[in-house]
Amino acid sequence: MRASIVSVGTELLFGQTINTNCAYLSDALNRMGIDVLYHFTVGDNPARLEDILLEGLKRSDLIITTGGLGPTQDDLTKEVVCKVMDAPLMLHQPSMDAIESFFEAVKRPMTDNNIKQAMLPQDGTIFPNDRGTAPGFAVTKNNKIIACLPGPPREMKAMFELSMAPFLAEKTNSVIYYQILRTYGLGESAMETALLDLIDNQTDPTIATYAMEGESYLRVASKAATFDEAKKNVEKTVDAVMQRIGEYVYSVKGQNLADVVAEKLLASGLSLSCAESCTGGLFAAALTNVPGISKIFDRGFVTYSNKAKIEELGVSPQTLEEYGAVSEETAKEMAIGVYRTTKSNICISVTGIAGPDGGTEIKPVGLVYIGLLVAHEGCEPEIYISQHLFRWKNREKNREVTVLAMLHSIFEHVFNKTK
Amino acid sequence: MRASIVSVGTELLFGQTINTNCAYLSDALNRMGIDVLYHFTVGDNPARLEDILLEGLKRSDLIITTGGLGPTQDDLTKEVVCKVMDAPLMLHQPSMDAIESFFEAVKRPMTDNNIKQAMLPQDGTIFPNDRGTAPGFAVTKNNKIIACLPGPPREMKAMFELSMAPFLAEKTNSVIYYQILRTYGLGESAMETALLDLIDNQTDPTIATYAMEGESYLRVASKAATFDEAKKNVEKTVDAVMQRIGEYVYSVKGQNLADVVAEKLLASGLSLSCAESCTGGLFAAALTNVPGISKIFDRGFVTYSNKAKIEELGVSPQTLEEYGAVSEETAKEMAIGVYRTTKSNICISVTGIAGPDGGTEIKPVGLVYIGLLVAHEGCEPEIYISQHLFRWKNREKNREVTVLAMLHSIFEHVFNKTK
Repeated sequence: MRASIVSVGTELLFGQTINTNCAYLSDALNRMGIDVLYHFTVGDNPARLEDILLEGLKRSDLIITTGGLGPTQDDLTKEVVCKVMDAPLMLHQPSMDAIESFFEAVKRPMTDNNIKQAMLPQDGTIFPNDRGTAPGFAVTKNNKIIACLPGPPREMKAMFELSMAPFLAEKTNSVIYYQILRTYGLGESAMETALLDLIDNQTDPTIATYAMEGESYLRVASKAATFDEAKKNVEKTVDAVMQRIGEYVYSVKGQNLADVVAEKLLASGLSLSCAESCTGGLFAAALTNVPGISKIFDRGFVTYSNKAKIEELGVSPQTLEEYGAVSEETAKEMAIGVYRTTKSNICISVTGIAGPDGGTEIKPVGLVYIGLLVAHEGCEPEIYISQHLFRWKNREKNREVTVLAMLHSIFEHVFNKTK
Repeated sequence: MRASIVSVGTELLFGQTINTNCAYLSDALNRMGIDVLYHFTVGDNPARLEDILLEGLKRSDLIITTGGLGPTQDDLTKEVVCKVMDAPLMLHQPSMDAIESFFEAVKRPMTDNNIKQAMLPQDGTIFPNDRGTAPGFAVTKNNKIIACLPGPPREMKAMFELSMAPFLAEKTNSVIYYQILRTYGLGESAMETALLDLIDNQTDPTIATYAMEGESYLRVASKAATFDEAKKNVEKTVDAVMQRIGEYVYSVKGQNLADVVAEKLLASGLSLSCAESCTGGLFAAALTNVPGISKIFDRGFVTYSNKAKIEELGVSPQTLEEYGAVSEETAKEMAIGVYRTTKSNICISVTGIAGPDGGTEIKPVGLVYIGLLVAHEGCEPEIYISQHLFRWKNREKNREVTVLAMLHSIFEHVFNKTK
């Protein structure tokens, strides 16, 4: 089954909203064996939406729309879809009741414009919205389906998972299986060069490489009649890939580095605390985003000022004076300071210049020192200090890749020592 | 000028990459007075890319593509664009030299597949890439332009700003001006109801409302011959809107709440420290993402364990025992603890249940307490404790809206007291 996703909303064309729905749905549909061939975005404009739906129907068996189902006047998706599919609208009483209950539950008055949301296609399949007021639906004509979801991501996702995915599963009969290999420290073109003959000889599984900020990844995908068959095909190719670039791979399941490190920490029971300067809490935030992490994460210090570094971590004023806050020595004393207070098995520190200002000739923007103290039960603590120079002039990016480097430093020194 | 954006990359259709380029370019083009009417996404498939480019040319004067300019075999955008526009390719020596210098600078060997990137349209305008290897370009035919940018966001943005925007500016002669009003505590349909007659009577400026996670916003846009005229139109409408819903508006310039609060903190010189439990550093990370914040941000504690709350903040073990870590009392003692150590003017604390597990009947997932201590010079500190119950069952969302609530608590109690 070939699908197109049509996102509706002038806010997308103004660039005020990043279209995350599209990525979510694409991933979910691919996993169900539905090929996503196109994404289209149009504004809240009925003529252009109609045009795009007609183009989409020429190119696909299934169109999924998001957005434009709400109560306000510029929400027009339902009306246009029903026009294109010749599906008359009528009041759907269960949806009207649900909308009324929703407003009671959130203790807000229901304004009249909400009634519009209960007008639904007479012969359509209706998908209830348990997190908002706009129901979704699917209509079929000449073996082509248009299925409509609301725009707010949490409503869209819940409706897709609970109602639309089961509806679509009945209509498809092949599966795509794929694995994402994520690597650190290997550029995209170097990766392709290492794998060129494998990529050249590909028909199924397919191999595709991608560059992300600070890391690269690779997707191996196979389409087959059964899950087991597709999986077997993928696994064979993954083995071949791992023989070439295995040393750079930190996940063969597409997990991000924070999740990989968190999983390993939880499995090993090693406790962790941290002290951050330039990342300002972003490392702790990345790790504590993982459910259950409280079992091993003790505490974090965001020691932004020198005073905080001295008072909370016992960094010596002389070190700060002599070597500066951004130095190997300060990173080391920060990590030792965390250990002194917490006695955590892993104490990690970071200090650097995130930018965009504050760089000098000797210490440019992007210069970062990471201190990692590892104290296994009954052993002398070991300390690893690493220096990094990131090329970004952008504060946000520098902070992100610094967190990645901190996570990778734990991955390498604590969990990947055999390499 | 009517534009379409065409994003190229199978990774987008697999949902492994969120398309942030599209939002960035849409915003930038709109600001230049170029109407963005459509977004299209296709995979690394030459036939489908050609099809979409031809459809795009029917509907627009300008197509901007992103992606598919790289060195690898599935990078085919340039070849297909040049086919559609009848533009022959030839080796562009300055680009070849730049690619060689790039590899020298990053001290990586240049693999042969990089040469492909220096093959460029003979009569095109070439855009150098100062952050990567793939140059961009624009080709014109029958008054229609196709302009191509690389896919990695930092390369794309730099090339757009430095080369493509000046190129396009010469070709457009009207401007769009718009203002984004961001609100907290007002639902989208309530906002529309409050503004219904203004929205109904709109032709120019246009008013559009949008719901985001935990907040809503509103865009007022005008298109006119000159910047000043468009701005005047927008400002008049914004005044009318402010009279209706001004009390909910925290920014009339589209700024996010972290930037608004940071700006006010920097202007006032009030120092800030924080203690986080459920948000795990995300509040500190949000605030320290703002350049220059080190002037007022002293330090943050991520006191995840009870032990950390006791040792770092002096929360009493009896309080934790009697009321629990997630309680008004703990939030209060955490804020007082931050003040005791730091003497910062603003000390903010948070404790809650982010989920997805760990909730009970009495303390469900989404329950959060925020403690805010405000100590103006020479005054007794004031303490405000607020209880929140967020409806999300999702850890990430709960953490995000909690940070928003913390920022809003500072905004309300410290900077918006006259309300």
